[in-house]
Amino acid sequence: MRAASATCAAAAVLVLVAAAAAAQPSDVEPAWREVAPGVWKATIGTPDSLTLLSAAAARPKSEGLRTMAPSTFPFAEGAVRARPQKGKIALRFPLGSDEEVYGLGVDFRSLRRTGSALRLHVDHWGGRPGRTHAPVPFYVSDRGYGVLVDAARYVDFWVGVGVRLAAEEKPPVIDRTTGGAAWSSRPRSDSVEALVPAPGVEVYVFGGPTAMDAVRRYNLWCGGGALPPKWGLGFMARTPTAYGAREALGEVAEFRRRGIPLDMLGLEPGWHDHAYPCSFDWDEKRFPDPAGFLAELRSRHVRANLWFNPYVSPTAPLYERLLPYAGSHLVWNGIVPDYTIPEARKVFADHLWDEVVSLEPAAVGGFKIDEVDGYDHWLWPDLAVFPSGHDAEQLRQTYGLLLQRLLVDLHRRANRRTLGQVRGTNGGASRFPFVIYNDNYAFDEYVTAVANSSFAGVLWSPEVRSGDGEDMLRRVQTVCFSPLALFNGWATATKLWTHAEVEGDIRAAILLRMRLLPYWYTTFAQYHDEGTPVVRAMPLVAGFEAEAAAAAGRLDATANPYAAGRVVEAKDQYMVGDSLLVAPIAPGERARRVALPAGKWFDFHTGGLVGEGPTVVELEPPLSRIPLLVKDGALVPLVEERQWAPGPDEVLALEVRHYGERPGAMRLYDDDGETFDYETGERSWTRLAVDRDERGSWRGTVTPDPSGEGWRYGDVRWRFMTP
Amino acid sequence: MRAASATCAAAAVLVLVAAAAAAQPSDVEPAWREVAPGVWKATIGTPDSLTLLSAAAARPKSEGLRTMAPSTFPFAEGAVRARPQKGKIALRFPLGSDEEVYGLGVDFRSLRRTGSALRLHVDHWGGRPGRTHAPVPFYVSDRGYGVLVDAARYVDFWVGVGVRLAAEEKPPVIDRTTGGAAWSSRPRSDSVEALVPAPGVEVYVFGGPTAMDAVRRYNLWCGGGALPPKWGLGFMARTPTAYGAREALGEVAEFRRRGIPLDMLGLEPGWHDHAYPCSFDWDEKRFPDPAGFLAELRSRHVRANLWFNPYVSPTAPLYERLLPYAGSHLVWNGIVPDYTIPEARKVFADHLWDEVVSLEPAAVGGFKIDEVDGYDHWLWPDLAVFPSGHDAEQLRQTYGLLLQRLLVDLHRRANRRTLGQVRGTNGGASRFPFVIYNDNYAFDEYVTAVANSSFAGVLWSPEVRSGDGEDMLRRVQTVCFSPLALFNGWATATKLWTHAEVEGDIRAAILLRMRLLPYWYTTFAQYHDEGTPVVRAMPLVAGFEAEAAAAAGRLDATANPYAAGRVVEAKDQYMVGDSLLVAPIAPGERARRVALPAGKWFDFHTGGLVGEGPTVVELEPPLSRIPLLVKDGALVPLVEERQWAPGPDEVLALEVRHYGERPGAMRLYDDDGETFDYETGERSWTRLAVDRDERGSWRGTVTPDPSGEGWRYGDVRWRFMTP
Repeated sequence: MRAASATCAAAAVLVLVAAAAAAQPSDVEPAWREVAPGVWKATIGTPDSLTLLSAAAARPKSEGLRTMAPSTFPFAEGAVRARPQKGKIALRFPLGSDEEVYGLGVDFRSLRRTGSALRLHVDHWGGRPGRTHAPVPFYVSDRGYGVLVDAARYVDFWVGVGVRLAAEEKPPVIDRTTGGAAWSSRPRSDSVEALVPAPGVEVYVFGGPTAMDAVRRYNLWCGGGALPPKWGLGFMARTPTAYGAREALGEVAEFRRRGIPLDMLGLEPGWHDHAYPCSFDWDEKRFPDPAGFLAELRSRHVRANLWFNPYVSPTAPLYERLLPYAGSHLVWNGIVPDYTIPEARKVFADHLWDEVVSLEPAAVGGFKIDEVDGYDHWLWPDLAVFPSGHDAEQLRQTYGLLLQRLLVDLHRRANRRTLGQVRGTNGGASRFPFVIYNDNYAFDEYVTAVANSSFAGVLWSPEVRSGDGEDMLRRVQTVCFSPLALFNGWATATKLWTHAEVEGDIRAAILLRMRLLPYWYTTFAQYHDEGTPVVRAMPLVAGFEAEAAAAAGRLDATANPYAAGRVVEAKDQYMVGDSLLVAPIAPGERARRVALPAGKWFDFHTGGLVGEGPTVVELEPPLSRIPLLVKDGALVPLVEERQWAPGPDEVLALEVRHYGERPGAMRLYDDDGETFDYETGERSWTRLAVDRDERGSWRGTVTPDPSGEGWRYGDVRWRFMTP
Repeated sequence: MRAASATCAAAAVLVLVAAAAAAQPSDVEPAWREVAPGVWKATIGTPDSLTLLSAAAARPKSEGLRTMAPSTFPFAEGAVRARPQKGKIALRFPLGSDEEVYGLGVDFRSLRRTGSALRLHVDHWGGRPGRTHAPVPFYVSDRGYGVLVDAARYVDFWVGVGVRLAAEEKPPVIDRTTGGAAWSSRPRSDSVEALVPAPGVEVYVFGGPTAMDAVRRYNLWCGGGALPPKWGLGFMARTPTAYGAREALGEVAEFRRRGIPLDMLGLEPGWHDHAYPCSFDWDEKRFPDPAGFLAELRSRHVRANLWFNPYVSPTAPLYERLLPYAGSHLVWNGIVPDYTIPEARKVFADHLWDEVVSLEPAAVGGFKIDEVDGYDHWLWPDLAVFPSGHDAEQLRQTYGLLLQRLLVDLHRRANRRTLGQVRGTNGGASRFPFVIYNDNYAFDEYVTAVANSSFAGVLWSPEVRSGDGEDMLRRVQTVCFSPLALFNGWATATKLWTHAEVEGDIRAAILLRMRLLPYWYTTFAQYHDEGTPVVRAMPLVAGFEAEAAAAAGRLDATANPYAAGRVVEAKDQYMVGDSLLVAPIAPGERARRVALPAGKWFDFHTGGLVGEGPTVVELEPPLSRIPLLVKDGALVPLVEERQWAPGPDEVLALEVRHYGERPGAMRLYDDDGETFDYETGERSWTRLAVDRDERGSWRGTVTPDPSGEGWRYGDVRWRFMTP
């Protein structure tokens, strides 16, 4: 009886299931088109009109893409699947059994994304994977390709997790009770799967053959990397919130008196007459003569960087003009203008021009765009309505992009480049010279974010605030080897000179930053022309061997209830440019291990051999030095110590150091450092080379750029560092 | 020129904006129907067929609802708004300027939800608001009403955050730079807003006049609270994973030898012949004679509780029968059967009946349903497909409900009640006798979750694992005043007797739990009949005054960059039943503050006056005691110390304690403690009362239930505790 009824019941269910299956969504294979050499695109369904690339007004840098070596589509035919599913799009990309995935935004804790499930959502970092300042939906495989899902949406990714029942190859089924270390808490799937909460999406695949090639193609597709002005690579100090013109100039004077370099002075909310929400008008008491103040700053070789968050106060004259474009919800009692609407951007940009930038374009270096990331309880809810008709979710994912774009265009009116800061950004941002920052202060997380920024086409820097002497010194050393060398004194009375015992070393670290300006600037020019990120996480570095994941971990009912193995990553070190390996030391640490890629590596200061990779060395530098290693054969160009970045009319002496035992060469970039004239030829790539002469001695040669204008170096002195 | 073109541009934009506005979704007022006294319901759009209440098979307890005092709809006409918005529903409920909101799931860090934005998503707690084991979309206002959004979806809530531009009353606009403490980092909105990612939803409003009334109505609408068997209120010890029958019986013998009470023995993954994924078949080596083992347990007055996670191993005979119902993705290599399909539930339940429960129904007390919460990297992705056609999101939000329902029905086949554990559940679960647990171990978080469970219609208990003597003792004391008194030894060799110096006090704590069985059982009967939660967070307690939020906090660039004020809540204490105030002490603490509601409160052990509320007292109990206070006039019924819960044939001596200076009364519940016969009248509510006789002495009276069967007490001894 039971068997018969079971059979009938089963049959009935099979009919039901078949009917449901017929109604189930089915996979399609996307139709890929090669839209540039090594860049493939597919359109699934009906994509949003507002995406990350459209919000960023990203236009591919075709010449850069054309000059790269050819590449082949990295997936087998039919291997990538797409499935429309109740108003969303499910995507599936193959993942090999030992393939590693990086990227998917700037994470602060790990480089690898393999084995994780995350939702990419612009937010202030707070420990959740995916909730971060630049949750870029672009991933990079160590097999040498990248994938971008161009959606201004909260896209979910499952990277090698979520084994499918229908998968051809599935992990072995192990009994946990008896399986010992063979049992894994995270069985590996054969896919990277993604869910886009929109009825369509455009997907891009960037070819290799290396992971770095894929990253370069992604950045070039976004328009190439940012080229900041030279002064943007100097030092920035942000002043306490309520500082006025008098105090600000006093701060500059103190820097100059103490011989600590300074190029940018950050004015915090106090420049507004109303902040949180903001008025975007100078406060009359604190800044009675803005034009005069800016001219004075300029005369001291300093440019201003002005803080704002974009939430406009009802007390501001600007308010009435932006009110027609306001979203349904306020942030800190200020309206949220819909900057997807060009007219709204124009109103805001015109106001900033009139009120700030036009006063003295050469003195207003840029802006700090605050609080466009999160948290959820401050920013507009996802049910907010905007006049353009775009969803609140799309505005959340693109607001920082829209503002960066607006500000870049604003400074361009004066043919000036800008360097700014931003707290929320996304895919497509590669060309924006804005550096991300946040309110956290965990040293290790800061360094990991620097490394991870190289997978995301964005710039991230830690900052220095307050602490004891060693803490501030170690952080100064670290920010001087990050894209933006920054002290942020907005909420403290502490200064760089508060701790007398480290003031000398702090000064030395910043002076070294200034000496390395040609190296930094050339590295940024590579980013601009070739899409190569300024900092490079170790997995992007040729000859680096990623360490294997540790075996199963130790079971603990509270700390490790699934006996997860620990993964060791070299996430606390990175390359700056082609030649410098930076391994920051945390405050309180005396020694640290450094993973060396293949080849010999030399000490930056002494030229001595440190080790030959691939290997791990233990270094114990003095408090006054950050571990800094140079590749074998590398050329490092430096200028003399200076207090501010050079202007277009200065001719500088150049020191070119050669390290190691091999010959080497580099192309040194130069231009006027301030304007966009480089776009019409006012630039140069000069070849520097070192080889051995007939007697076996090192010799250096300079080969000028035949078409090049913009070479502003005079004497070239060669220094062969390695005995 | 500029003015003219600006006017034209503005005009053009206004046309655009008007067009977009015309296309904008518009608000409607939901149509409310009173579906039971004090319960209103509205249907917006086209609701899902699978919701929380439908997954839980929740049927209202009409008689309980009818006996409550009448209530009025808590909102003004037209005040609640609903807006369909691109396949979702936006909801808005008014929120008064000083109104406090509680609930929205079991949070581990705070009671108040006011000022937060959260997404309710079944997950293992990990610090994120909304991501929790019971993310129930039900909130309670201190103005005395509750709202349930019955959706098996990831519902977003914004509770008093997200000020609307169109709001009639908005917070004052303060300049942060000069405003000092007047500036708030979290301007208060006039609403609770919610976003349901589905084209329709059913919403319920539960009337007061008190918050406790609203909670009771919610629980009664879900079917009334759970009534566990009496033995479920005794002590549970879970054994190490690989224990077999021999070791398990040895554990029981040790409990008995040491005189430590034990009612339930938990078998961990080792009872399966394959776990992670699971086979649901007894392992032959570890349990060669399951029926014999269960009978032996039963003879020692112990019931088994069997662990499982629901992911079925390909090695299991059950697999082939469940495969037609499997979702597209695996969890730990096991299939995820679609238990929204009745036939799938039947297959699984039949198997458990045959393999486990039917062997000895009176010995198998229940099951522990593990890993139906998260994390995201283990459970099925949101793009998974299930044969019923329901979304993966819906399955995630209801999987625990479906399994609890299945198991309750399973045990009912033998007319037996069950007590189980579950790690993921949701709204509608009030009637399920399953207690939530997790892998964390933070003491303060555990206690806050106990308090918060009272707003969510679920049961939560901390557990004891391993630690030093004081740590284990304090935790034992705390679990003995939680719904489930539980030691979990799955991953440790530690036992309750490992630390000899505290073994006596541990035994005493558990013996006190056993003495209080009549009190606990009566309290659960109140939950069952009247919907009153077993534990009560302080805001639900009459006469409790919630403390005000602290003034603006101290600014710190890292720790508190928005100078947020600290909110002090009495989240580390709660009531058990009508009369006992429990204030757990954390390991390592010597003293603690306790907030007393209005009236006098007396020490449980001595009867002495502790304080008169509303006030805060500081207590310094010895290590051997947990702070335990009794309300003025309360009656507390106890039995003698015993080693296991009483069976239906035992007649027990009853001690009734009276505390304080006022007369008092209570209704004491009793039934057979094991079966469902109480549903057909085999139960009693006996009135106990204490008042002063003519001479002014206390006297106690027992008034039997006229219709009542089920009174199993013999002698009644009265003890007037307060001198």
